[in-house]
Amino acid sequence: MRLLPLLLLAAAALEADDKPAVLAKMDASAAHYGDVSRKIWEFAEMGYKENKSSALLKSELREAGFRVEENIAGIPTAFTGTFGEGKPVIGIMGEYDALPGLSQDTVPERKPIAEGAPGHGCGHNLLGSASLFAAVSVKNWMAANHIKGTLRYYGTPAEEGGGGKLYMMRAGAFKDVDVVLSWHPADSNGSSLSSSLAIIEAKFKFYGKAAHAAAAPDAGRSALDGLMIAANAIEFLREHVPQTTRIHYIVSKGGAAPNIVPDYAELFLYARHPNMPVLDGIWDRIIKCAQAGALASETRMEMELIDSSYNTLPNDTLAAVGDRNMQMVGGVKYTPEEEAFAETIRKTLPDRARPLGSQEKVNPPAEGTGVASTDAGDISWNFPMMELHAATFVPGVPAHTWQAAACAGMSIGRKGMVVAAKGLALSAMDLFTNPNLVDGAKTSFAKRRAGFEYKSRVPDDHKPPLNYRDQ
Amino acid sequence: MRLLPLLLLAAAALEADDKPAVLAKMDASAAHYGDVSRKIWEFAEMGYKENKSSALLKSELREAGFRVEENIAGIPTAFTGTFGEGKPVIGIMGEYDALPGLSQDTVPERKPIAEGAPGHGCGHNLLGSASLFAAVSVKNWMAANHIKGTLRYYGTPAEEGGGGKLYMMRAGAFKDVDVVLSWHPADSNGSSLSSSLAIIEAKFKFYGKAAHAAAAPDAGRSALDGLMIAANAIEFLREHVPQTTRIHYIVSKGGAAPNIVPDYAELFLYARHPNMPVLDGIWDRIIKCAQAGALASETRMEMELIDSSYNTLPNDTLAAVGDRNMQMVGGVKYTPEEEAFAETIRKTLPDRARPLGSQEKVNPPAEGTGVASTDAGDISWNFPMMELHAATFVPGVPAHTWQAAACAGMSIGRKGMVVAAKGLALSAMDLFTNPNLVDGAKTSFAKRRAGFEYKSRVPDDHKPPLNYRDQ
Amino acid sequence: MRLLPLLLLAAAALEADDKPAVLAKMDASAAHYGDVSRKIWEFAEMGYKENKSSALLKSELREAGFRVEENIAGIPTAFTGTFGEGKPVIGIMGEYDALPGLSQDTVPERKPIAEGAPGHGCGHNLLGSASLFAAVSVKNWMAANHIKGTLRYYGTPAEEGGGGKLYMMRAGAFKDVDVVLSWHPADSNGSSLSSSLAIIEAKFKFYGKAAHAAAAPDAGRSALDGLMIAANAIEFLREHVPQTTRIHYIVSKGGAAPNIVPDYAELFLYARHPNMPVLDGIWDRIIKCAQAGALASETRMEMELIDSSYNTLPNDTLAAVGDRNMQMVGGVKYTPEEEAFAETIRKTLPDRARPLGSQEKVNPPAEGTGVASTDAGDISWNFPMMELHAATFVPGVPAHTWQAAACAGMSIGRKGMVVAAKGLALSAMDLFTNPNLVDGAKTSFAKRRAGFEYKSRVPDDHKPPLNYRDQ
Amino acid sequence: MRLLPLLLLAAAALEADDKPAVLAKMDASAAHYGDVSRKIWEFAEMGYKENKSSALLKSELREAGFRVEENIAGIPTAFTGTFGEGKPVIGIMGEYDALPGLSQDTVPERKPIAEGAPGHGCGHNLLGSASLFAAVSVKNWMAANHIKGTLRYYGTPAEEGGGGKLYMMRAGAFKDVDVVLSWHPADSNGSSLSSSLAIIEAKFKFYGKAAHAAAAPDAGRSALDGLMIAANAIEFLREHVPQTTRIHYIVSKGGAAPNIVPDYAELFLYARHPNMPVLDGIWDRIIKCAQAGALASETRMEMELIDSSYNTLPNDTLAAVGDRNMQMVGGVKYTPEEEAFAETIRKTLPDRARPLGSQEKVNPPAEGTGVASTDAGDISWNFPMMELHAATFVPGVPAHTWQAAACAGMSIGRKGMVVAAKGLALSAMDLFTNPNLVDGAKTSFAKRRAGFEYKSRVPDDHKPPLNYRDQ
Repeated sequence: MRLLPLLLLAAAALEADDKPAVLAKMDASAAHYGDVSRKIWEFAEMGYKENKSSALLKSELREAGFRVEENIAGIPTAFTGTFGEGKPVIGIMGEYDALPGLSQDTVPERKPIAEGAPGHGCGHNLLGSASLFAAVSVKNWMAANHIKGTLRYYGTPAEEGGGGKLYMMRAGAFKDVDVVLSWHPADSNGSSLSSSLAIIEAKFKFYGKAAHAAAAPDAGRSALDGLMIAANAIEFLREHVPQTTRIHYIVSKGGAAPNIVPDYAELFLYARHPNMPVLDGIWDRIIKCAQAGALASETRMEMELIDSSYNTLPNDTLAAVGDRNMQMVGGVKYTPEEEAFAETIRKTLPDRARPLGSQEKVNPPAEGTGVASTDAGDISWNFPMMELHAATFVPGVPAHTWQAAACAGMSIGRKGMVVAAKGLALSAMDLFTNPNLVDGAKTSFAKRRAGFEYKSRVPDDHKPPLNYRDQ
Repeated sequence: MRLLPLLLLAAAALEADDKPAVLAKMDASAAHYGDVSRKIWEFAEMGYKENKSSALLKSELREAGFRVEENIAGIPTAFTGTFGEGKPVIGIMGEYDALPGLSQDTVPERKPIAEGAPGHGCGHNLLGSASLFAAVSVKNWMAANHIKGTLRYYGTPAEEGGGGKLYMMRAGAFKDVDVVLSWHPADSNGSSLSSSLAIIEAKFKFYGKAAHAAAAPDAGRSALDGLMIAANAIEFLREHVPQTTRIHYIVSKGGAAPNIVPDYAELFLYARHPNMPVLDGIWDRIIKCAQAGALASETRMEMELIDSSYNTLPNDTLAAVGDRNMQMVGGVKYTPEEEAFAETIRKTLPDRARPLGSQEKVNPPAEGTGVASTDAGDISWNFPMMELHAATFVPGVPAHTWQAAACAGMSIGRKGMVVAAKGLALSAMDLFTNPNLVDGAKTSFAKRRAGFEYKSRVPDDHKPPLNYRDQ
Repeated sequence: MRLLPLLLLAAAALEADDKPAVLAKMDASAAHYGDVSRKIWEFAEMGYKENKSSALLKSELREAGFRVEENIAGIPTAFTGTFGEGKPVIGIMGEYDALPGLSQDTVPERKPIAEGAPGHGCGHNLLGSASLFAAVSVKNWMAANHIKGTLRYYGTPAEEGGGGKLYMMRAGAFKDVDVVLSWHPADSNGSSLSSSLAIIEAKFKFYGKAAHAAAAPDAGRSALDGLMIAANAIEFLREHVPQTTRIHYIVSKGGAAPNIVPDYAELFLYARHPNMPVLDGIWDRIIKCAQAGALASETRMEMELIDSSYNTLPNDTLAAVGDRNMQMVGGVKYTPEEEAFAETIRKTLPDRARPLGSQEKVNPPAEGTGVASTDAGDISWNFPMMELHAATFVPGVPAHTWQAAACAGMSIGRKGMVVAAKGLALSAMDLFTNPNLVDGAKTSFAKRRAGFEYKSRVPDDHKPPLNYRDQ
Repeated sequence: MRLLPLLLLAAAALEADDKPAVLAKMDASAAHYGDVSRKIWEFAEMGYKENKSSALLKSELREAGFRVEENIAGIPTAFTGTFGEGKPVIGIMGEYDALPGLSQDTVPERKPIAEGAPGHGCGHNLLGSASLFAAVSVKNWMAANHIKGTLRYYGTPAEEGGGGKLYMMRAGAFKDVDVVLSWHPADSNGSSLSSSLAIIEAKFKFYGKAAHAAAAPDAGRSALDGLMIAANAIEFLREHVPQTTRIHYIVSKGGAAPNIVPDYAELFLYARHPNMPVLDGIWDRIIKCAQAGALASETRMEMELIDSSYNTLPNDTLAAVGDRNMQMVGGVKYTPEEEAFAETIRKTLPDRARPLGSQEKVNPPAEGTGVASTDAGDISWNFPMMELHAATFVPGVPAHTWQAAACAGMSIGRKGMVVAAKGLALSAMDLFTNPNLVDGAKTSFAKRRAGFEYKSRVPDDHKPPLNYRDQ
C-alpha cells in the first residue's frame, strides 16, 4: 500500500455545503435508475449489439437535457451526451454490454432465464446506469449552481472484448477531455490505485480442404486439426511464460459436420500480462503456435486481431479524490432478505475469503495488479482517469459468473450501483469546483507515464469488429 | 467380382414390349422432374428441416394420384405416397436433405451462393426427385396396364446423420413392404452389390465450471479442456483400431467467450467400420477416451447418441435386376459445354483416376465395401433392398464436396437423375410383373442374413433428433 | 491369387535323383544347426552388435570350407562366405539380430529371462541358422557332384532397422550375384509372391534451452515440448493419410531430469506404405509435423535418417521354384508336448484365425501386401530374389512378440527352421542345375520392375548407423 | 521484508575475541577444501551413487578426528561424523550429488567434458565441502577452547530428488539434534528467511500390450499412448492450478523400438507449490490425468512415489544469527580474470537483472518464497534450521545450468564456498557459546510451526529409492 498525497485537505472547505444536498436528491431518484439498470439487465445485449440498451440511455440523457451525439466512430451503439461548455471537461464513462452464456435469474442457484443466452455477468447494466445517474445528478447540480465547465457521458459499447473505447478515442470523442471518471461493479467498495492486465485478442482462422471424412479423409486437410495442434502447442507454452501471464481461448468454429473434413476452424484467444511489452513477446510465441498448427496440418492460418487494451495506469490524485468521496458515501447495507440471499449464494462459491459484511466498508486505495483487462486501459494512458468500484456483488462473488449476473439484476446490485453513482457524482463536483485537482490529476498522470509511448496493438486502420460476437 | 445368378434370363420375354414405351414417356417428362430437383437444390434444407422440399414432393405425389401420409414417426418432413393395393408392395425411397457449409453455385470453381450456408453436396435433391420421377412413371404404367400391387414412395428425411429411415421403420411405415428400391448419386452408373460402413454417431457433452479466465482460472473447470483431452486421446486411438475404421468429429460447441472458462463444450463424432460388432468394440474405446477427458479435467461427460446405421446388406437377385435395367438405360452423354465444365472441374480434384467418358458406361455389380454410410443400411437388414447409382457427378467428383453440389444443380446432375429414375422404374416394372423376382429377392435376403440378429444401436425409446443440425 | 507359370514342369526330370538324398542328409545334421540357432537365441544381440552371433556363423562357414570375407562395408558383423566359382552366382541371405525388450523364456506365458533385455522376437536366430544349414548342405552336394557355380552366404546384420543389406550392397557385396534366396520365420509355410511395406526411419532430434524447471521455466525452451507437439501433430496426421500407411515411434530420449527443462529430446519414428513414392509424400508431412513442434516451442529440430527400405518386389519364377520345393519338403508336425505348448500359448493371442494344424501345410504363393518391412526389399529391386517362409511360430503367433521369442528358442522353432533350410537348399539345387530358371528369374524381374528407377532414401554418403540401438 | 529480532545484540560481547582468529585459520586452509570440492566436482556422481564423493568426505572427517557412522538408513552414501559430547547438539548438513546431463568444463561457453554425463549444476560439490570445512574448523576451535557440546556433520546424499535427509531423519540420525545449520550455493550472499516450494515426485508407469507396430497395431495397447495422453492432459491442467504451482516432467522411458507397440512407458514428474496441503489437491488432479491416460489407451497405470519434501520453515532467530555472521565474513571479490570470465558467461544469460559486483555484498534476510525445493524442508519442520547462501555462481547464473556447473568447478565457486564455510563456522560458534540462541531458535521454531502437523507424503514404509537415477 502507498500513502496518498494530502494536498486535498486544503480543498475540503469548498464543498462542505453542496454534497449532502446532492446525496439526498440522489436517494430520492435512486429507484428510477435502478429501473433503468434492470431494463438493461433484461435486454442482456452483447458487444456492439446493445441497441435497446443504448437507446434507453440516450433517451434518458436527452430527457435530462444533454446534447446526444450518436454513432460515434461508426458504431451504432456508441454515443456521448454533453452538458455545459468550457473548461474543465469532465467525462464519465458507462458500459452496458452483456456476456454470452450467462443468462441467469435473480435467484441464488444456477437458473438461466434462457439456456445459453447472454447475461450481465459483469454487471455492466449497473455500470452504464450508475454513470448515467451520476451524470444527471451532477448536471442538475451544475445547472442549479451555475457551475462552469463541460460534463460528458460516454456511452462506451463492447467493453467485453470489442474495444469500444479505443475506436471512440480514435474518432476524437475524447480529444477535449481533462479528466475521465469510471467505475466497475465488484464485491467491495473503494477507489482504485491498482492496475489491470494488458490484453491482446485475436481470432486464429484455419483454412483447410474439405473432403468426405469417411470416403477420402486422406484427400482432406483438416482446418480443425490445424486448430487442435495449435491449441495443444499453446498448452505446452503455458509452462514457459511468466506465471502472471493469462492465455485463454474458445473454439469459436469447430467444423460444419462430422462427415466433412472441416475446411474452416477458428480459435478465439485472449492473452494477458501486466506489462504490454512483455505481452508482445508472449504474443509472438502464440502466433508461432498457430503457425505450427497450420504447418503440421497443411492448412493455412490467418490471424484477425480483434482487440487489444493496455493495462490501466493509476492516477494518484484521482485515486485520493475518489477515496475521500467513497468514504463519505459509505458501503452497502443488506436487509435480512438480502443477507439470506447472500448467505445462500456464498455456499456456491469456491472462495469465501472476503467475509460477509465487508460490503459495508470502503477500502483505501492500494497498489497492485488486478486480474482483469479493460478498454479503459487505453483511456488511462492518454488521459487522467479515476476508477472506482462498488459492492454490487455479494462478497466473494467474482465477475463473469452466474452469481454476478444474479446480483446484477436485483436489489443488491442496485444498492452497489447507487454507491458508485454517488462516488462519481461527488468526485465530479470536486473536479468542477477545484481546478487544483484537475491540475494535480494531470501532474500525477505525467509522472507515472514518463518515458512511455502509447501505441495500441490494434492497427490504425482497423475498423470496430461489429460482428465479433457472431458465432 | 462375383458372378450373378442367371435366373433372370427366363423372365426376359415378359417385358420386352412395355419398357421402351415407358422410357420414351419418361424422356418426355424429364424436364419437369429436373425442375423439381433444381427447386430442392435451391431450398438446400438440412436434416429434419426439409419443410419446403418435402412439401414440394408431397404436392407432386398428390397431383399424380398418390395417397399421401404425412408426419410419419412424428417427423414433420417424413411421409409416404401410396398407389394401388395388394401384393406385391414395392417401395421406392427418396431423400432430400442438404449438408451444412456446402452452398455452391453451378460453376466449376469454389463459389458459395451464401457463405457458410447448406448445399446439396450429396445430390439428395436429385435423389428424391429421381425416385419421385420413377414412382410417378411406374404408377402411370400400372394404371394404364391395370397392374396389380402396391407402389409406395418413401419420403425419408435426414439421411445425413439424422436416421430418418430408422424412425420411419420403427413407426411401422415399412411393415407390409416386399422389396425396397433405392439409389444414390455418384460419379458412375450401376447396380450395387457392395456394402457400406456401419456407423454410430453421438454428441459427447462436457460440463465444467465457469470462472473468469483471467481472474480465477484455477477456480474453473474447463469443459473445453475435457473435450480437447478426449479428442487428443481419440487421435492416439487411430493407430490402434483396424485400418478400415473411420472416426471423425467436429467441435460443435467450443465455449461461449474466451474470457470465461467454458462450462460447456460438445464434440460431435461419427465412427464407422464395415462390421457393426467390430464397431461396437471401437465405440467402447471412444467412450473411454471421452471419459478420460472428463476425468482429467474434473468435468462431467454425457454421451447423447444421435444416430446409428448398419452397413448395407447386398441382395444378389435385386443387384442382377438393377444391372440388367441399368444396362438397358445406359449412361450419361455430355454436350460440349458439359464436357468443358467437366474438364474444368476435374482440374480441382486430387484424384482423377476415373476417366472422363466413363459416365457413359454402366458398370457391372461388384462386391466390396463402400466408403460411406446410410440409414438405408438398416432397411437392407430388414427387407430385400436394391441399390442403384447413377453418374450425377463428373467422374472423379466425390460426394460431400462443393464440386458435387455444383453438379447437382445443373444439367449434368439432371442427366444422371434421369438415368437413375429410369433404372428404378424398369426394375419396379420387373418386380410387379414377375413374382419369381420378388421371391428370389427374399431368398437372396435370407441367405446373406443367415444367423444375424438386427438390433439398432439407437435405443428403442430414442426420439428422432429433430434439432441435430442446430448449433 | 495368381496362376504360376508352368515352365517348371519341364525341368522336373533333372532333379529327381538328388533331392531325396540331400533331404536325408539334412535330417541327419538338423540337430547341429538347431544348436547353432539356440546359441544365437541365447546371445540375443541387437542390430550391429551381433558379435558372438556373427562369429559363430563365420566359424561354421569356415569349418565347412567357405571362404569368409569379414567386415563388409566397415560393419564388424557383416560378412560373406563363398564356395565354388563361376556362374551362376547364387546367394543365400541370413539374419541374426534380436529385438529390444523381448527377452523371453521358452514357456507359453510371459516370462523374460532378463527383464528389459533383448530377445529373438522375430526369430532371426533361426533365420541365419537355416540359411547356414542350407548353404552348407548345398555346398556338400556341389562338392560331391562337381556342380559348377558360386554359392555365397550373406551374413546380413541389423535387419531390424539398421539396413545392413543396403550398406553391403553399396559396398559391392552383391555385384556378381545372379539370384538371391531368402526366407523369414512365420506361423505358416510357403513361397512368397507378396510384397512388403516400404519404410523410412529417422530420429527427430529437438534442441532446446535448459533452465531450472521450478525457478525459471519461462527462461527455458523445452526440447521435450517440441517433441510432444510434433508427436501430437503426427497423431492428427493419421486420419489424413492412406489407411495402409503405418507410422510408429518411440520417445528415445525424453529429458535428463524432471527439474531441468530438457534441452534435448529425441523421437525415433518409422513410416511405411506399400508404395515408396506415396511414402515420400507422407514423409514430407511428418517432417512438417516435426518442424511445427520446433516452431511452436522455439526449439531447433534436426532429422537424422536412420534407415530406409523398399517394399519387396516379388519374382514370379522364383516364387514357383520355391513353391514346388516347399511342397516337396512339407510342413511341421508337432509332438503331443509341442501341441500342448501350442494350445497354451494360443490362449494368450488376440487373434486365433489361423487354426492349429495349419503348420502342417504348405500354402501356395499369393499376391498381396505384407505387413512388415525388410532391408531385403532393396535387394529385390536390384536382383531377382526368392522369399520363403516357414512355420517356426505356433499358428496365430505374430512376429515381434514374446510368443514368437518363446517359439524361436525351442523345438517348434527348430522344426520350422529345418523346413526353411530344406526349401532353400532344394531351390538352390534347381538354380545351379537349370540355367533356364536363372534366366526366367531375370525375365520375371525385368517385367515387374519395368520403368522403375531404384534410389534408396538413405543418402549415398550415409554411414551404417552402428550405434542406432544405443539409448 | 521483515525486521529481525534484536535480542542478539546482547550476545555480541561474548564472541569478539575468537572469531577473527578462526577466520584467519580458515583462510590458511581454504585451498585444501577447494581441492576437496574440485575432486567431488570431477567425480560428478548422481544421487545415491556418490560413492567416491562420500568416501572422500568421510576420510576427511576421520582424519580430522570425527567419529564416522556409515550406511545410515541403509544408504551406502549417507553418513554422519560426530565430535564432542553433551548439549547442545549442533548439526551441519552437507550435500554432494550431481545432476544428469550437466557435464561442463570450467569455461564460459557450453562445453561438456563428457556429452550427456552428469555435472555439478547445483554446486553440491561446494556444498558438502564448505560444510566439511566449517565442521573441521569449529571442531578445531572447540578442541582448542574446550567447548562443551556435540558437533555433527550430516553427509546427506541424493538431495536432487532422492530425499536422503528424510530417510536419515526416519532412521533417527537427527533425534538428539538441537539446531541444524545448512547452506546452498547461489549467485548472492546472505542468510535466508524465505521458504521454498513443497514438492512431490513420482514415476507414472504405464503398462500396455506389445504388438508388431506395422503388422498388428490394432492388437497392441500402447503404454506410450497412455503416457502421452496423460502428459497432454497435464498441460491442460496448468491453466487451472494456482499460478505459483510448478509441474515438470520427463519421459524417462518412451518405448523400446519403433516397430514394437510399447508395452512400457514412464513419466517422471515433479509438482511443487509453496504450500503442502494445496499441493496435495493439485497432486490428486495430476493422478487423475495419469489415470485418464490409462483409461483412454486401455493400459494400466501405476504411480511410484519417489520423493516428497516440505517447503522450508524459516527460523527468525537463526536467520538473524546467520545474517550477523555473514555480514562479518563479507562477499566475494573477483580477480580481473574472474571478472572477465563472469562478463563472458553473463552474455549467455537471458536475465542479467542482478548486477555484476553484487557478489561482493551480503543481503539482509527477507521473507518470500523461493523457487526451488529441498529435502532440508522436512528437517526444517522438525528442528530449528538455519539456511545461508553464498555467491558461488556469477551473478545472474541460475542453478541447474551449465553455467552453474562451470562456476562450481573453478575459483569463483571456491571463493563462494569459503564464504559459506565461514558463515557456518561463526554461527556454530555462536550457538555453542550462547545457550540463549539455541533457546531462541527453538522458540522461533515453535511460533512459526504452531498448529502444524508434520506428515511426509512419502509413505512410512518407503525405502530409499537407491536406483532412482537409473534409466
